[in-house]
Amino acid sequence: MSGFAYPPPRSVIARAVGIALEEDIGRGDVTTTACVDAKAVGRAVFAARKACVLAGLPVVDEVFAQVDARVKVTHVANDGDRLSVGSVAARIEGPAASLLIGERVALNFLQRASGTATLTRAHVDALGPSAVRGTRIADTRKTTPGLRAIERYAVRCGGGHNHREDLSSAVLIKDNHVAAAGGVAEAIQRCRAIAPHTTRIECEVDSLVQLRIALDAGADIIMFDNFDDAMVVEGVAIVNRRAIVEVSGGITLDRIPRLAEMGVDVISVGALTHSAPAVDIGLDWEAS
Amino acid sequence: MSGFAYPPPRSVIARAVGIALEEDIGRGDVTTTACVDAKAVGRAVFAARKACVLAGLPVVDEVFAQVDARVKVTHVANDGDRLSVGSVAARIEGPAASLLIGERVALNFLQRASGTATLTRAHVDALGPSAVRGTRIADTRKTTPGLRAIERYAVRCGGGHNHREDLSSAVLIKDNHVAAAGGVAEAIQRCRAIAPHTTRIECEVDSLVQLRIALDAGADIIMFDNFDDAMVVEGVAIVNRRAIVEVSGGITLDRIPRLAEMGVDVISVGALTHSAPAVDIGLDWEAS
Amino acid sequence: MSGFAYPPPRSVIARAVGIALEEDIGRGDVTTTACVDAKAVGRAVFAARKACVLAGLPVVDEVFAQVDARVKVTHVANDGDRLSVGSVAARIEGPAASLLIGERVALNFLQRASGTATLTRAHVDALGPSAVRGTRIADTRKTTPGLRAIERYAVRCGGGHNHREDLSSAVLIKDNHVAAAGGVAEAIQRCRAIAPHTTRIECEVDSLVQLRIALDAGADIIMFDNFDDAMVVEGVAIVNRRAIVEVSGGITLDRIPRLAEMGVDVISVGALTHSAPAVDIGLDWEAS
Amino acid sequence: MSGFAYPPPRSVIARAVGIALEEDIGRGDVTTTACVDAKAVGRAVFAARKACVLAGLPVVDEVFAQVDARVKVTHVANDGDRLSVGSVAARIEGPAASLLIGERVALNFLQRASGTATLTRAHVDALGPSAVRGTRIADTRKTTPGLRAIERYAVRCGGGHNHREDLSSAVLIKDNHVAAAGGVAEAIQRCRAIAPHTTRIECEVDSLVQLRIALDAGADIIMFDNFDDAMVVEGVAIVNRRAIVEVSGGITLDRIPRLAEMGVDVISVGALTHSAPAVDIGLDWEAS
Amino acid sequence: MSGFAYPPPRSVIARAVGIALEEDIGRGDVTTTACVDAKAVGRAVFAARKACVLAGLPVVDEVFAQVDARVKVTHVANDGDRLSVGSVAARIEGPAASLLIGERVALNFLQRASGTATLTRAHVDALGPSAVRGTRIADTRKTTPGLRAIERYAVRCGGGHNHREDLSSAVLIKDNHVAAAGGVAEAIQRCRAIAPHTTRIECEVDSLVQLRIALDAGADIIMFDNFDDAMVVEGVAIVNRRAIVEVSGGITLDRIPRLAEMGVDVISVGALTHSAPAVDIGLDWEAS
Amino acid sequence: MSGFAYPPPRSVIARAVGIALEEDIGRGDVTTTACVDAKAVGRAVFAARKACVLAGLPVVDEVFAQVDARVKVTHVANDGDRLSVGSVAARIEGPAASLLIGERVALNFLQRASGTATLTRAHVDALGPSAVRGTRIADTRKTTPGLRAIERYAVRCGGGHNHREDLSSAVLIKDNHVAAAGGVAEAIQRCRAIAPHTTRIECEVDSLVQLRIALDAGADIIMFDNFDDAMVVEGVAIVNRRAIVEVSGGITLDRIPRLAEMGVDVISVGALTHSAPAVDIGLDWEAS
Repeated sequence: MSGFAYPPPRSVIARAVGIALEEDIGRGDVTTTACVDAKAVGRAVFAARKACVLAGLPVVDEVFAQVDARVKVTHVANDGDRLSVGSVAARIEGPAASLLIGERVALNFLQRASGTATLTRAHVDALGPSAVRGTRIADTRKTTPGLRAIERYAVRCGGGHNHREDLSSAVLIKDNHVAAAGGVAEAIQRCRAIAPHTTRIECEVDSLVQLRIALDAGADIIMFDNFDDAMVVEGVAIVNRRAIVEVSGGITLDRIPRLAEMGVDVISVGALTHSAPAVDIGLDWEAS
Repeated sequence: MSGFAYPPPRSVIARAVGIALEEDIGRGDVTTTACVDAKAVGRAVFAARKACVLAGLPVVDEVFAQVDARVKVTHVANDGDRLSVGSVAARIEGPAASLLIGERVALNFLQRASGTATLTRAHVDALGPSAVRGTRIADTRKTTPGLRAIERYAVRCGGGHNHREDLSSAVLIKDNHVAAAGGVAEAIQRCRAIAPHTTRIECEVDSLVQLRIALDAGADIIMFDNFDDAMVVEGVAIVNRRAIVEVSGGITLDRIPRLAEMGVDVISVGALTHSAPAVDIGLDWEAS
Repeated sequence: MSGFAYPPPRSVIARAVGIALEEDIGRGDVTTTACVDAKAVGRAVFAARKACVLAGLPVVDEVFAQVDARVKVTHVANDGDRLSVGSVAARIEGPAASLLIGERVALNFLQRASGTATLTRAHVDALGPSAVRGTRIADTRKTTPGLRAIERYAVRCGGGHNHREDLSSAVLIKDNHVAAAGGVAEAIQRCRAIAPHTTRIECEVDSLVQLRIALDAGADIIMFDNFDDAMVVEGVAIVNRRAIVEVSGGITLDRIPRLAEMGVDVISVGALTHSAPAVDIGLDWEAS
Repeated sequence: MSGFAYPPPRSVIARAVGIALEEDIGRGDVTTTACVDAKAVGRAVFAARKACVLAGLPVVDEVFAQVDARVKVTHVANDGDRLSVGSVAARIEGPAASLLIGERVALNFLQRASGTATLTRAHVDALGPSAVRGTRIADTRKTTPGLRAIERYAVRCGGGHNHREDLSSAVLIKDNHVAAAGGVAEAIQRCRAIAPHTTRIECEVDSLVQLRIALDAGADIIMFDNFDDAMVVEGVAIVNRRAIVEVSGGITLDRIPRLAEMGVDVISVGALTHSAPAVDIGLDWEAS
Repeated sequence: MSGFAYPPPRSVIARAVGIALEEDIGRGDVTTTACVDAKAVGRAVFAARKACVLAGLPVVDEVFAQVDARVKVTHVANDGDRLSVGSVAARIEGPAASLLIGERVALNFLQRASGTATLTRAHVDALGPSAVRGTRIADTRKTTPGLRAIERYAVRCGGGHNHREDLSSAVLIKDNHVAAAGGVAEAIQRCRAIAPHTTRIECEVDSLVQLRIALDAGADIIMFDNFDDAMVVEGVAIVNRRAIVEVSGGITLDRIPRLAEMGVDVISVGALTHSAPAVDIGLDWEAS
Repeated sequence: MSGFAYPPPRSVIARAVGIALEEDIGRGDVTTTACVDAKAVGRAVFAARKACVLAGLPVVDEVFAQVDARVKVTHVANDGDRLSVGSVAARIEGPAASLLIGERVALNFLQRASGTATLTRAHVDALGPSAVRGTRIADTRKTTPGLRAIERYAVRCGGGHNHREDLSSAVLIKDNHVAAAGGVAEAIQRCRAIAPHTTRIECEVDSLVQLRIALDAGADIIMFDNFDDAMVVEGVAIVNRRAIVEVSGGITLDRIPRLAEMGVDVISVGALTHSAPAVDIGLDWEAS
């Protein structure tokens, strides 16, 4: 699992963290400055209060690196690990004031990223034994503005896969593109003409008729948009492995094993990033 | 309601939108460029697919201003309005390619902000007739990194109030501060000594004993941390309007009217910003 | 004193320093590069040429951290200390070229910040024995563009207090707001309705009539705008500790003890930041 | 005069203004939002409360352009003009809330820039009839961090001239450079070897002996550092127009005509930018 | 041709232009300010002094939009057009000073982008009649730091295609990756496991043996690294259209038609961006 | 030679490198992440594949400092050195993945900068024995947008000199300025009036008549624009060392010794930065 839970480049994380700290700290933490001696040191652990899949440790590293380079962050678990209630994710040690100043931002990131990883893991687990067939759970572009790279990482930590990174890195033809281009075949042909040869051409279809046209026009990936199970079965048969089959829309956890069983290659789920509830992770102070 | 649904400064919105567009568009939308004629124009409406409270129109304005200044955004509803299913929030008109390029980012913001406004409104409505007593529903610092100003605006659109903006703009003494300062009274005294006189001193307490100490030390606001109803009643009586009473932790919708009835001034709810599900708002294209 | 001389977050200082170095160094110091061997090391001290109160050491640290991380800055005094002529504030050691390159920017910050601290200290000292009553000398928003956080720190180093940080972190109702809202009471009511409960409501008044209205409307702080001594005395009596009394406008050093004696809580002085002359601090090279 | 009062590029002004607005407005002006109807319009004038030389109109333009593009700024006077008490510098019209939001930052810039222009003008005027000989009053690198370009512009508005822009745009050899290079002649030779041919070589000297060496080594500009009048006279005679003569250090207004009379070409004055008091310019609202 | 000459998003161009103007204008154009009346207007045309393929008009638009919004830029030709000597690319009209201030930066971009377009066009034209078979000329990651998006656009203007945008948007396995992964098949398998399903897997091979392994492992694209003609012929036969064939290294204009004839799909050429000489385009002033 | 090969400030390099890495790495190197174990270390050398003059080592340092601070860069040669085929410029050691991730950007910079240094050196060497007379080879403003400071450094590494840094740091009067000012003398007088006294006034002339006017008007530097040899000889005689003589336009390597012999002081060559071909430097991996 850890194999593909690779984090974004540090500069990408650093930018998101810098903005978050700026908006939370403002011109300085008055309360902590007043109450906590600058020389006092402390130690605390990030611990799961609910079972979850962990994601976000590189963000925690960066938060404290920016708040105070003297804070030492020790990973006790790894991103992608399943944490039971009470399990410790990481330990922080250093100037107590700095721990307090960074706490909220670290938790805001960690709870959200772990929420996405946990929800992703639930979807991946739902694939069941059919997972051996290689069906993927994938994210979408429905990510939180400003946090896309971190949320895609969280999806990977949960065992999911990423869809295209952004509008420039791959082609996905939707209904409006088809209408504008004058047809599915025309849209596919036009996209292939200008897309880098390193990119597959994906086309969304809303009927079996469109599916056949897209397939004949050479689409590399066909996205079944809101197909019911019967249509999926028929669609997969029509495609017959000449293209990658992606299903999107109306995905529920209980439908996932059926879809996998039907031979769907990719199940993309917007909820992984737009509706994952934050998981309850807290910071527990240790006696010093 | 519209009175306090004032938006953040445009520069604050512009920064968040700029980052979101950069991460979603990358070096350009290959699909749209291939399929859509640069001269084609289009028209579409943002419409609610579920009942919700609207928030985020200034963000939609900014998204299209940045994508293509020729796109005209017309507000059909106002932020803070309750939208029924099918209600239109705003109309966009202009180059079809630009509408497509900005669509996803606009929706990502709008669905999240309206989600927070809708959840906030549910909490405010739960205050019931006792709302006349002036009990406030307030947010916390548990906001999405990078989106604090927009989420605080969404809370206002839902009829809620804002808590402190950041660590520098107000004082909130928590258990670790008390421990570090050597006691509740000491912490309050230290904070008052350095905080601007424009700022109230808030102190979190976890017992009635601490409450009395905080009150005697002159705390302006006392936050009851995870008090049960009986403790809240007793606490309010002890305070006896000598301080503002805030309740936090374990807040459920059904408990809100009771808390209001007990005379609590502020009920702060982290879930407004960390757990509000995105509401389903879509973009419907109109025949041209 | 050192208690509240807490510096702004390093990121805030770093931004101001980065801009200053960029504008002063441009694409590199031609003179130093030509004349000074890259391997030469040097040592120098920042020394007061006039008696002053020191402020700005964290800025000096940051200047040299950005110019050349090999430069070692040693604080010999502390911010907030009164320096006599010839007293050393800090010592720098490292590559001679780097010391020369950072010298001017370090001095530009240090002389200005210490100027503000020194002027503030003069005002605080003028409070005399009545200081025990707790009258505060406070700054205003009349700060140098781009340097607000550093100047507010300098005020703290001089024993002064900060007024509100910016327009979003507190409420201050002035004549134009009153006119627009339709009266003092209306303005106060409107502001209280939307301001966070953590914030006090301050209202500027220019007559005793207005003062009574503001007081009755529940203003937490009342600012006497350009009141003469007689009016201040009367105003304090009317307020009778039901609100914080702030006096602003026409403040001179010799008037301060009188105002403190009259029971004024806060004396705010724009000159601390808009008219403090730079103090003469120089860099003296030590024989190597 | 207006000939050389050319402003910095708009992008340079925009950056300084953006930072200033960000630090003053924060997440929004609570008071103005509460009190002022969004549709209300207003009109006000920036008027001198003390006689001064005006500088900063392009900054005022930029402040309101950033706050709200609907605000119209009309210049009534020009930068570089001498304003008498009550004279109007500029008029602003537009949404009243936006005028209030931008007021403080506009004044903070305008009062400081006009302060520098006014002080510069006093020095230029002090040159008296000898000004026809072409003696220049020049600024130094002792500028406010972040505001160098604006302050250099203010110096030009006051009739002064600029010294080198930064360390990379010209050569100025000081005592430490001489010591490092092993002598005045060596330093001059080394600098000439690497400096662009478009740049003059300036050398600071502290004695007539050094002056002769610098002159023989081909210095284009010789700066007399803290020379008394007798030394200046002798120095000018030695130079005999083979180099530009600059005098620096210990400059007082009454000494300026003497220095000009002696044939000094440039008198550089750090105080123009590090000690100019802000001039009192206010914003007067006009009945609407 | 114009079909795929789509420009990068304006924000991407704006950033590059902003940096270029900042480094060229500094704190203002002293010469132009001194010589050119602020009210003077002018008109000039960008004209080819050598035959070339045009690229860069959106950059010219942006340069003058940033320098002075009053400058009107009129496109006389289109990007992708072949210009003969003397042909006009665009006309600029407006304040003469602004035309002069933006001239150099506009030319620096235009000459370089057109250089790349011209060199690309030469390669595309060299494909000859076999171009109908669809062989592509493609760029590489050997672009000028900071100008990648603009150079990729210039390649498109010249009729070429883009390779992957960056390291995150596609997979290209090189010798070091193979060595690290423990073999070609292992590397391919590992990359497929984590790459988005929208991305093809490309593998560089340096022998026919490696080619067969890559093909069997399911590589979607096989890059022949420095293959001579005989090896290319044999390689294409082995692949037999089961993968896309890309040839790289040692590409000369005269070899291109042979490679196309052999059935190569993509010929990637680093020189398009790292060695294209700037084309001579000048700015000719028109009598006003 | 190394004397003037001083690099730009680190912050200037860091900005260019940061942008380059951002555009090349995007959200992470998928291929390397998949194939290379995070713990694997490697070692490689940058080696010249063609004879060249080296420039760019500080940029290589910065690339790897930003990619991964654990990578150790060891300089084997110095910038300004002539490298023969196979010579090693620098060695890098550290995490193998990080070496791979930074490789392309490091090479993109190094090959271009060394290209400029190599071409500059060819021009400087062409001065031949007359170099003792001090004729300079200088660059121009025809630099690559965003890379000016690095390219000017590369020119210095090649033994060349820099012309003015930007439009604000020196004066260069061209034909359009002359036309606008109403004559050569007027233009010179106007520029001298506002330029800092540290700056020489340069005037481009296109005839001997203009040359005489410029000389009489006191131009410090006269640029002969596209003069043929006969005109250069005559021009130098007219100037007779009363001004610096710069020649520009139509410079070829074989003409350089003649120009130097004629007594020209500066030969400025746009091609150094706009047409220097990248030199072939590669990264060779060493067995670990």
